[in-house]
Amino acid sequence: MGAKPPLSPLAPEGFPKLPVIGGVSFATTEAGVRYQNRTDVLLVSLAPGTAVAGAFTRSATRSAAVLDCQDKIGCDPVAGAAIVVNSGNANAFTGRRGAASVQAITEATASALGIPANRVFSSSTGVIGEPLPHERIIDKLEDLASALSPHAIETAARAIMTTDTFPKGASEVVMVDGQAVHIAGIAKGSGMIAPDMATMLVYIFTDAAIDQDILQDMVSALNRTTFNCITVDSDTSTSDTLLVAATGASGLRMTENSMGFMEGLRRVMLDLAHQVVRDGEGATKFVEISVTGAASDAEAHIHAKAIANSPLIKTAIAGEDPNWGRVVMAIGKSGARADRDLLAIWFGDMQVAKDGFVSPSYNEASAAAYMKQQEIVIHVDLGLGGGTARVWTCDLTHGYIDINADYRS
Amino acid sequence: MGAKPPLSPLAPEGFPKLPVIGGVSFATTEAGVRYQNRTDVLLVSLAPGTAVAGAFTRSATRSAAVLDCQDKIGCDPVAGAAIVVNSGNANAFTGRRGAASVQAITEATASALGIPANRVFSSSTGVIGEPLPHERIIDKLEDLASALSPHAIETAARAIMTTDTFPKGASEVVMVDGQAVHIAGIAKGSGMIAPDMATMLVYIFTDAAIDQDILQDMVSALNRTTFNCITVDSDTSTSDTLLVAATGASGLRMTENSMGFMEGLRRVMLDLAHQVVRDGEGATKFVEISVTGAASDAEAHIHAKAIANSPLIKTAIAGEDPNWGRVVMAIGKSGARADRDLLAIWFGDMQVAKDGFVSPSYNEASAAAYMKQQEIVIHVDLGLGGGTARVWTCDLTHGYIDINADYRS
Repeated sequence: MGAKPPLSPLAPEGFPKLPVIGGVSFATTEAGVRYQNRTDVLLVSLAPGTAVAGAFTRSATRSAAVLDCQDKIGCDPVAGAAIVVNSGNANAFTGRRGAASVQAITEATASALGIPANRVFSSSTGVIGEPLPHERIIDKLEDLASALSPHAIETAARAIMTTDTFPKGASEVVMVDGQAVHIAGIAKGSGMIAPDMATMLVYIFTDAAIDQDILQDMVSALNRTTFNCITVDSDTSTSDTLLVAATGASGLRMTENSMGFMEGLRRVMLDLAHQVVRDGEGATKFVEISVTGAASDAEAHIHAKAIANSPLIKTAIAGEDPNWGRVVMAIGKSGARADRDLLAIWFGDMQVAKDGFVSPSYNEASAAAYMKQQEIVIHVDLGLGGGTARVWTCDLTHGYIDINADYRS
Repeated sequence: MGAKPPLSPLAPEGFPKLPVIGGVSFATTEAGVRYQNRTDVLLVSLAPGTAVAGAFTRSATRSAAVLDCQDKIGCDPVAGAAIVVNSGNANAFTGRRGAASVQAITEATASALGIPANRVFSSSTGVIGEPLPHERIIDKLEDLASALSPHAIETAARAIMTTDTFPKGASEVVMVDGQAVHIAGIAKGSGMIAPDMATMLVYIFTDAAIDQDILQDMVSALNRTTFNCITVDSDTSTSDTLLVAATGASGLRMTENSMGFMEGLRRVMLDLAHQVVRDGEGATKFVEISVTGAASDAEAHIHAKAIANSPLIKTAIAGEDPNWGRVVMAIGKSGARADRDLLAIWFGDMQVAKDGFVSPSYNEASAAAYMKQQEIVIHVDLGLGGGTARVWTCDLTHGYIDINADYRS
């Protein structure tokens, strides 16, 4: 690995102040899985009765830890639960050894906390294709169990970082019947997958009381418009994991109609998703792609992803070039329905194309000035129907090539 | 535009010697469509009776010239025919004006050559979204018609270049009943679409006699394993055009069973396809992705394209990094069937992964040495069935970013 990359220019000013979530405590340690002189293992303890919902990579080559989490999601939440995460080694593409490592870690964690093994969720992120030295993690579990603190969420966010340039956290307080429900989450990730390491990992905690199946439905639905709407480089990790744990410590019960809570959870998920994009490898611009007028929401999403993943559009944004022709190209290749002569395109508030041709009001100098901003919005209206979608991405720069191609030099 | 990019390190030694094709003649001129001091218009005249087949971009925002060609393909080949091409302006996303320009150019060409307008095929390549000054082309048609020569195919290849760093030609001579049938073709393109310009244009000529519908079936079938199997940057042009013209001048008639002729045509198409990849923007490596053992040929193609289009794999190749973990990632995300623990991967002859884990014979130093070659073969066996595919691509380098992002600086 070369030198540590500099802080992303799109990083927030600092780690936010996150509320304590009743029933959740954290501990971190230096286990030397791969990194030296930094924390690399996180243990999260969750009170008995905590409902845990999740969403995972759909990769056909997903890791053993992801498969294990998927098996355990939905099981009876009577007992306590735990999340154990290591950075430095992804335990992905490690054959049968991978599953054995997951079993060893989750059973040892269950034993250290006195909970059933089917309530221990694990994640690993880092290099792939190398056996995980899981005994280094297991050796630290007793120490971790005795060091658990409800105040350690920022150190938790730092322990799971790999190529991230900043730790990521977000929170919301939602008022329900005059009482506060808290939601706090952490995330890591700076590419869908990064130099042999990385993956997106997200852990969100709330003191709301909510049935596991209702929480799972909310998470699955909200995931569709948050984490599933970001892309750094179109590449998908073998280990992406989102876990949402509801401890019930607030004593306030949510239902499928708790719109205030659902909106709070959505905001936390979207904030963390945006932070992952802002830490995208080599990113210098934060870009929103908004598509309206598509034949359906699903087709709007296909168009938005085609625009957000186009290397030519991402390099044009890096070059501060208002190259709307490349947007036309991406819509054309997406496979979703489009009529060239109905297309309208805006960069920010500026209409650049209309009825399939350059807009009469288009001014190259103004458009070029707009592209110098750090945050860019590209809006496309297809003129076909009511389908809409929003997707977030970053630009494609020399920094991306430096991180990913010059890795061995 | 910045300085002209240097000659691709993957360029052939020079333009090949191509045979004269009876019934085909070429003329080029400087019309100043956009470029100054270089040829930018090509006229090809085809003898009466020439069958013309084609394959075109499937972009939903395809250009007016592509739509016009698609309308005309398959019409009665009794009369003579023509192809007229300009570089410098793609006449794409130019609304109703685009169609009017195509009509004006094809009608003027028909008039200059005394052939019906429905036998004139046109292409335009260059900037998109700017009205085509078609009168500059029309003003030159009488001169072009009087300058036609059967020997000018190399100048033809040069007149259609945009960001290409070398002109592209290929030929085959096929023996049929002891007599020679000739095939010669030219191509341009150095990205699926390039800095506001580019597009892949391919014109192939043969003196074989062949029915238009049989030629069309051959071209459609061969296109699937040649031009449809190359990718530079996953972006698809609004103007990609392949035209194959069979004049019949050899007097030798081909049928759907003329395997020798079909194999010759395939070799010319594949050679030109490979030359387009070798001129890929910023390319320093020519890469073959070979997939075997997939559940079907179609799924093998999906896996191969996912590998060939992955920015992380393309940057790893640029960095001479034998990063087989990223190949696993791309297979996982492709959407086609895969079983992680059956995967085997080779870089050249070196097996790097086996049964879902690093191969016992893997040697990092040998693999790193292999990656220093200019031509790289990545072979994946999925262990599922008999499906196979081959795809060709290039690496993703700082040169690509220079050409596409630094365009305005």
